[in-house]
Formats: sequence, structure tokens, C-alpha cells
Amino acid sequence: MGNQTFQFKNDIYIGSTATVVGPKEVAGPLKVSFDKSYQELYCGEATWELAERKLMSEAIDICLQKANKKNAEIDFFLGGDLLNQNITASYVAREKEIPFLGLFNACSTSMESLILAAVLIDGDFAEHVITAVSSHFATAERQFRYPTEFGGQKPQTAMYTVTGSGAAYVCKKKSKIRLVAATVGKVIDLGVTSPFNMGAAMAPAAASTIKTHLEDLKHTHKDYDAIVTGDLSSVGTPILKSILLEEGVDITKVHQDCGSLIYSSDQNVFSGGSGSACSAVVTFGHLFNKMKQGMLRRILVVATGALFNPLMIQQKQSIPGIAHAVSFEYVEN
Amino acid sequence: MGNQTFQFKNDIYIGSTATVVGPKEVAGPLKVSFDKSYQELYCGEATWELAERKLMSEAIDICLQKANKKNAEIDFFLGGDLLNQNITASYVAREKEIPFLGLFNACSTSMESLILAAVLIDGDFAEHVITAVSSHFATAERQFRYPTEFGGQKPQTAMYTVTGSGAAYVCKKKSKIRLVAATVGKVIDLGVTSPFNMGAAMAPAAASTIKTHLEDLKHTHKDYDAIVTGDLSSVGTPILKSILLEEGVDITKVHQDCGSLIYSSDQNVFSGGSGSACSAVVTFGHLFNKMKQGMLRRILVVATGALFNPLMIQQKQSIPGIAHAVSFEYVEN
Repeated sequence: MGNQTFQFKNDIYIGSTATVVGPKEVAGPLKVSFDKSYQELYCGEATWELAERKLMSEAIDICLQKANKKNAEIDFFLGGDLLNQNITASYVAREKEIPFLGLFNACSTSMESLILAAVLIDGDFAEHVITAVSSHFATAERQFRYPTEFGGQKPQTAMYTVTGSGAAYVCKKKSKIRLVAATVGKVIDLGVTSPFNMGAAMAPAAASTIKTHLEDLKHTHKDYDAIVTGDLSSVGTPILKSILLEEGVDITKVHQDCGSLIYSSDQNVFSGGSGSACSAVVTFGHLFNKMKQGMLRRILVVATGALFNPLMIQQKQSIPGIAHAVSFEYVEN
Repeated sequence: MGNQTFQFKNDIYIGSTATVVGPKEVAGPLKVSFDKSYQELYCGEATWELAERKLMSEAIDICLQKANKKNAEIDFFLGGDLLNQNITASYVAREKEIPFLGLFNACSTSMESLILAAVLIDGDFAEHVITAVSSHFATAERQFRYPTEFGGQKPQTAMYTVTGSGAAYVCKKKSKIRLVAATVGKVIDLGVTSPFNMGAAMAPAAASTIKTHLEDLKHTHKDYDAIVTGDLSSVGTPILKSILLEEGVDITKVHQDCGSLIYSSDQNVFSGGSGSACSAVVTFGHLFNKMKQGMLRRILVVATGALFNPLMIQQKQSIPGIAHAVSFEYVEN
């Protein structure tokens, strides 16, 4: 097997998950799958950054409540967010008092966290790990693009950052969803330079990770009921499919995208959703619900990240992408 | 043993290391310990950010040359930096084409990377892992404080960000330096709100991690020839010692600080060095050299990180700290 992919030796399970989202997300088609939502972006806090912190804090609380675990019983907290210096996760780690490993791979941090959580448990370094990621429309707009008050026009290739947080409790205790295998992505860059076209920037990385995962495990798309990318949306998705088809891999029949699932086409979200929370809240809510209902038996979630910051764009650098993949399996009773 | 601390089951070694630094560092007392240096902050590049990228890229190249390994033989690259969205490490990962796990715990990312590298190898997920972190005086000043052209006066509690990068190749092949045990830190915050007083912000986290490490392993300071903090410098060091003394732990005789070691007192660096590269270049150069000469047999390196960003300071939030510890042992032939 290639080095990028590993299958876990022990049975590692998703003990529980939780999702907390904002107004746009709860108005969308996946409404019933979220645990909690807010009707305004401030979520009752004084600033958007504090609102994002609240989303992650509550996602962790609800997740651990479902698992009937206290903070003190959790060995490690792994996670990150999009804010400069991962500040949401750091402040949440302070509040929860759980030993903390901060991670950052932009919007692919959701699966990066799950991979390293499973590694820690599989290698007997931990028994109980919580992971969480977040993003917020208003904090991301301000930081990565223009102040929302500026009212700048966006091209249709732009994406809409998901406001929300998804948390997952990973453990050895049997549940209905097992983490089976994972592929760590390489950073790939085909030269996209617009922060309003992240789908195109991330598609090549998703293609690389999917191809590597299937090859390393000698799988085809038929081994999965769904291969779900994080946030390629309507622009990146055809690019992904076309790159893979050129390399002889056809995932058309099983492909879905969290960024396309989370909003409906009449919600004015340009090409679809993005943000660290996008893959997390769709996977931990909607997709895992389908698995628990037995409607999906094996899925591959490929979280995609655009690795840029505004200063690099100003310096005319292109936007590299990365994608990390985790496969999940429905477990019969 | 407490959950925060683990001893590695297999023998995990530092196969090689490399350090590349800037003008201030190579003018300091540890001059002979660095592999390469530049006489100006641009390092021959068009921007400071590109200069920082060059430092990390070259540190990895030199490190792998010493180990006689090619990029393609390395399973994973783990690392991070201080720039928004970890952009130095991401672009370097693109160039090296090694599967990448981006990490961020501010200046403690040096030891966070080594911990997870050792976890991946100890758990049989990898055989060859490269870690690297970087920081740069000019990129950090611009991003975290004021543009240097502004010429703002600083208080004596301020620190001087180390320009440099340290890389370490971690493997199972026997070398003179073995990674023995590690403690993952908790985020701790006693309410410091000034980005010009990071030593005080980080000292409580260092105290917590050191106390936990010693307790978990039933060790005292006598088990170590040196307990070396990352970048507490002249302000944080007395705070660390005093917190630990109050809790009955006396490390006075064995304590050193990378931020105090790297510059001499006549170099105008305020209270001393800081930055992700600080603990990395001092540990991977000076301290490991002392171990290879048999002058230090067992050391505990406690990398300290201040988890803030300028927006949080503007919103009157305090600065949480974190510290991750790794112990290294000299191996006889």
C-alpha cells in the first residue's frame, strides 16, 4: 500500500457528533440534520469572532453530552478553524481544559482532525478524542476578502462560507459508524490566483487524493455508496470529474459535494458553500444520519482546503489546494 | 500515567536536523551551531514572506541531505509557522510534494510536530517523517504588531522574533538522539492582554506542562540535565520558576530558555527571542550538538506558544498560552 493511505488496525468508531449552524444553513435543505441553529450571525454575542467561538464550544458540548462524557474524560482535543492563528479552536481549548493539538489545513481540517484522532487511538496513545472545526460567513469575509459593509460584487464562481461548527467524538466503543481508512493529501497547485474561485483551486488536490486512495486500497468507485468532496461546489465539481476521467477514474455516479448539498439553488450562495464547517456539518449531520438509517453503507469523505491568505494574493502567488480523505462504514448491530 | 503524557513504545530517533537563520541570529552566541545563514532579512527574495519560505525550504533540503533521503522517500511532512493560514509551511509542502499535515500551536508547533511525527512512527503509520517550523522577524512584526516602518517604541517586556527555520527528520533508524516521551499541553490563560508581554502570557502554560510531565513519569528535575523552555525569555522565566516553586517543583538548577540562549544581551532584543523558529533552531542546533558531544544526556524541551491574533487583542481578549514537551536522550554507540 502507498504511504499516503492507511487502514486502521483496530476498530475506531464515531461515538457521537454534533452540529451547530447559522441562519442560512438552517434555512437550507439539510435543516433537520442540525442539532442547533441561530437566526442571526452574531449568535447573541458582541462580535462575529465570539459568535464563531460559541458555535464550536456548543458543538463540543452537545457532542459530549450525546456520548455521556465529561471534558475531563477526553484525552485530547484536535481541531482548527479559518481565523488567523486558529484562534477559535485555541480559545475553545482554553475553556474546555482538554490537552490540545491545533491543526490547520484550511477547509480540509475536518478530516485532518479525524485522521489524527484515529491515529492517536489506533496507536494506543488515547482512548477518547474530540475533534471540532468551525467557520463563519462574516469572520471569513472580513478576513479573506472585503468587509461586508463594502458591498463588493462577487463573480458567480465565488463561494459562500458556511457558518457553523461540527464536532466528533472518536473512540473504541462500538457505534454504527466506523472509521476504516484514510489518505493524507499532498499540496497541489495548478495556478489559480483568485480567492473568488476556490473550487477550481481545490479540485486538482481532491482528484489526487481520490485517485491515490482508490489505487492504494485497490478500490473503485463501486466500493463506495458515495464519494463526497468538501466544498468544490458547482465550479470545482466538473473540474474534479474531468481530471479524474482523464486519468481513467469515473466517480460520476457516486459523487456528491457538501458545498452543493448544504444550500438550495435559490439561496443566493453563488457556486455553493465552503469553509471548514461545510464538510463537517454535512458529514456529521446529514451523511451520518443516512448511514445510521442504513441508506449509505460506505462513504469516502474528501475534505478540500484552499491554502492561501490575502497577503499571498496581493503578492501574486497562486492558491494551492489540499484534500484529506476518510472512509466510513456502517456497522450492523 | 496521565493521559497527557506518553512514552514511545518503539525506539524513535532524530535521524538528522538542519537550521537556517537570519542576520541577528548568526551574529549571536550560537553562531557556530547553524547550518546556513543570511546577512539580510530578504534572503535574496522579493518579499519577507518569500524569504521565510526559502528558510524553511532550505532547512528541509539540508536536513534530508544529511540523512541521505529524497523527498519521495518521506511519508509525511508535519509543520507550521506563524503566518496567517500557515502559509509558509503550505507553500513549502507544495514544493516538496510530500503528503502534508499542517499544524498550528504558535511557537510550540516545533514540539507539536515532533510529537505527532513520533506518534505516526510509533503507531506504524509511517517510517520517515520530516518536521519543520519557521518564523521571521519582519513578517511577524508586520502581521502581529506594527509595520516596522512605523518605528513604534516597544517596552522592555517585548520579544524579538527569531528569523529562521528548523527541520528534523524523525525515523526508526538508530542515531545519537532518541525521542523518549512527550506531554501534550493544555491551553492556559491568566489574563495577559499585551502582545508585548508574551513571556508572561506563556509562563503558566509552561509551568503546567512541566509539572504534568514530571508527575506523570514520576520524575524530578534531577532526571534531566536541562529543562529548556522555548521562548519565555527574561520576563517569563522568573514567572515560570516562581509558579513551579509555589507548587513544590524546583527546576532552577536545570532550567534554560531558547529565547535567552539565542541572543546576547548587547543585541537589543528586549527580553529575548521568540517565534516558532526559536525553540527549533536552538534545539536542533546548539542543544543536539551538546548531546552528540555527550555534554547533555537527557533534556526536556518545552516549546511555548502564545495563541493570539491582533483582532482578538483589539476585541480586548486576553492571550492564552500552550506548551508541548518532548524529552530527548543521548544514545551511546
